Amino acid sequence: MTLYHDSDSIAAMDKRIRAAFINSITGFKPANLVGTADCAGHSNLAIMSSVVHLGSHPPLLALVIRPNPVERHTLDNILETGVYTINHVSSDIVEAAHQTAARYPRDTSEFAATGLSELWIDGFAAPFVAQAAIRIGLKLRDQQTIALNQTHLVIGEIVHAHAPQSCITAEGAIDIEAAGSVALSGLDSYHESRRIKRMAYAKPDQPPRELEQR
Amino acid sequence: MTLYHDSDSIAAMDKRIRAAFINSITGFKPANLVGTADCAGHSNLAIMSSVVHLGSHPPLLALVIRPNPVERHTLDNILETGVYTINHVSSDIVEAAHQTAARYPRDTSEFAATGLSELWIDGFAAPFVAQAAIRIGLKLRDQQTIALNQTHLVIGEIVHAHAPQSCITAEGAIDIEAAGSVALSGLDSYHESRRIKRMAYAKPDQPPRELEQR
Repeated sequence: MTLYHDSDSIAAMDKRIRAAFINSITGFKPANLVGTADCAGHSNLAIMSSVVHLGSHPPLLALVIRPNPVERHTLDNILETGVYTINHVSSDIVEAAHQTAARYPRDTSEFAATGLSELWIDGFAAPFVAQAAIRIGLKLRDQQTIALNQTHLVIGEIVHAHAPQSCITAEGAIDIEAAGSVALSGLDSYHESRRIKRMAYAKPDQPPRELEQR
Repeated sequence: MTLYHDSDSIAAMDKRIRAAFINSITGFKPANLVGTADCAGHSNLAIMSSVVHLGSHPPLLALVIRPNPVERHTLDNILETGVYTINHVSSDIVEAAHQTAARYPRDTSEFAATGLSELWIDGFAAPFVAQAAIRIGLKLRDQQTIALNQTHLVIGEIVHAHAPQSCITAEGAIDIEAAGSVALSGLDSYHESRRIKRMAYAKPDQPPRELEQR
């Protein structure tokens, strides 16, 4: 049996049901902690699942920030300092990472509140998460408000990148499964992964070919 | 041992190594097939990992389209007809889905070339993928070029949604793991998932609490 919805039936859904449905419909999402600080160095940490690759040269990532109080603290800090960090959530920090979504007052650091540890790099005004195996430092390059729903699109360039040496593949990729990174679905589900296939570069005159694992 | 890169060492990487590294650094990505057609009804299908949730009311999704010939066919069709579909990749169609990334000529349909089947809805000018358990039909609402690297940001509103009734949770979410959806990492790795936790809505005055699985 297939469930079917159109614009009208989606608009008529109960607000929480619709949020659960639409947030789960895009597929798996990355689970990342975004670290920032204000000009006085007060830190902030927020879980976000909206990081998306924009390009590799220059290395640009986009981040969608929603117009609610929790995520607004992050945006204000990014605009103040021009920098932020993106840190992968792994299974051992799922509970602390999820808890950063609570509506703490602006002067409460989600690091202190959740037990995660700040890691600072000289000359970089945003904190990394010490417990994360994969950590990225970004410099703000562009930002705008999406007129349709007042969300913010933040574009940053990667200026720092940390990953476990043991998780780098022969081709230069990070094996994020080996690094313990988890995926998110919907608003509240966290998932471990099991690699099923690596596929060779697709060519029109060749059938799909599997690569050896790693 | 932690690998460390800064802007200079990223810029100095071999092109393929850099693409593999930066494409894997964001975390897990959704694996979706984007279906389109030109005004004459010639279909096109392309795998994309850049779908991101923008909002639930109205239900808006963003899609990043890269300025290469394969993805350009998709963008041209979206601009021509104003509609497109997003279809989840599941383990049984990974090979066909990956093969849609090959540089087929514009007049070749990736449906025919890869063995996936078109599914049309009356009055909607873009094909769905019949084999996909979760299928979304979208209407173009906004689009723009990102000046920094000439990628395109396409924003669409969900006007059709299909999902297996058996995969809808009590809260209204789609259990995409039960639906067989896979996650992507880097450029070529496909992953099945195993749910490790569902977390309750985070509140500042309560510790993190796990929800029962489904």
